[in-house]
Amino acid sequence: MAAAEGGEPTRIMVAVNESTIKGYPHASISSRGAFEWTLKKIVRSNTSGFKLLFLHVQVPDEDGFDDMDSIFASPQDFRTMKHRDKIRGLHLLEYFVKQCHEIGVACEAWVKKGDPKEIICYEVKRVQPDFLVVGSRGLGPFQKVFVGTVSEFCVKHADCPVIAIKRNASQTPQDPVDD
Amino acid sequence: MAAAEGGEPTRIMVAVNESTIKGYPHASISSRGAFEWTLKKIVRSNTSGFKLLFLHVQVPDEDGFDDMDSIFASPQDFRTMKHRDKIRGLHLLEYFVKQCHEIGVACEAWVKKGDPKEIICYEVKRVQPDFLVVGSRGLGPFQKVFVGTVSEFCVKHADCPVIAIKRNASQTPQDPVDD
Repeated sequence: MAAAEGGEPTRIMVAVNESTIKGYPHASISSRGAFEWTLKKIVRSNTSGFKLLFLHVQVPDEDGFDDMDSIFASPQDFRTMKHRDKIRGLHLLEYFVKQCHEIGVACEAWVKKGDPKEIICYEVKRVQPDFLVVGSRGLGPFQKVFVGTVSEFCVKHADCPVIAIKRNASQTPQDPVDD
Repeated sequence: MAAAEGGEPTRIMVAVNESTIKGYPHASISSRGAFEWTLKKIVRSNTSGFKLLFLHVQVPDEDGFDDMDSIFASPQDFRTMKHRDKIRGLHLLEYFVKQCHEIGVACEAWVKKGDPKEIICYEVKRVQPDFLVVGSRGLGPFQKVFVGTVSEFCVKHADCPVIAIKRNASQTPQDPVDD
């Protein structure tokens, strides 16, 4: 057996989300950590050997929160809101795509709406990456009860190998549920 | 940020075991699968960027099974048996080390005795690899009850990112508990 020379790049899906503290267009600490880990430990200098597939799943409820005080007077207002949500998601992806572009790693990025854990597993089935990288807040069992963990669900249910990258302890915000 | 150029190689620990069907020195289907996946999807042509750390944990009970019919007449007989077990483990590791050597990937390999899941997590703490690759038989929930799964334990408890590589469905032996 020989290590692969050239051929199809390894396709890594990276699930990313926005910061719960700063909101769009800021990436969460764990998303950024997972992305940087992938570059540093897997891609390394072999930029032509990999292709990163960024998936951002917008949670309808959460994303609508900022609009609680908005007044919707016409169907156009709703369209405007939806349009704005979409733009925010795109700005988040721009952060990752820009960095890939700078270091010369091929990538694709897209936004979906729904329950992140379900959508990520669905997209894995559809896109068939070689493996999936997800960030994880590294919460304890007590905290997990309240927030659920997307990473654990994906490790169990995604149809491809999954690697969960825990957030650095030094980067944990005051409330560890934040990210 | 730039992708790492040179610098310390990424250290990947790969937990390997022998085939339950063929025994030593044959590697299990899932160990071999995890190893080949790591070369093909992660290392690729970047052979100088990675170092593989092969850990084989011998299970005292299982390994002693072949000796059930042996007659131990002196302390020397026990020493001989222990020596033979060790040799078998080394032959297993030789399989992996030889392939790494042929393609030019740095590696280290060693044998430990004990409960694989506990020892793997202990060795992760001690050796601090960048991540751990474990093969998995991909058993269903019913089969898992009886055999336990080292991979699931490591995903939960190892002090580093873990990627579990499921055995190919086409490589499943008649009894899926075999490997």
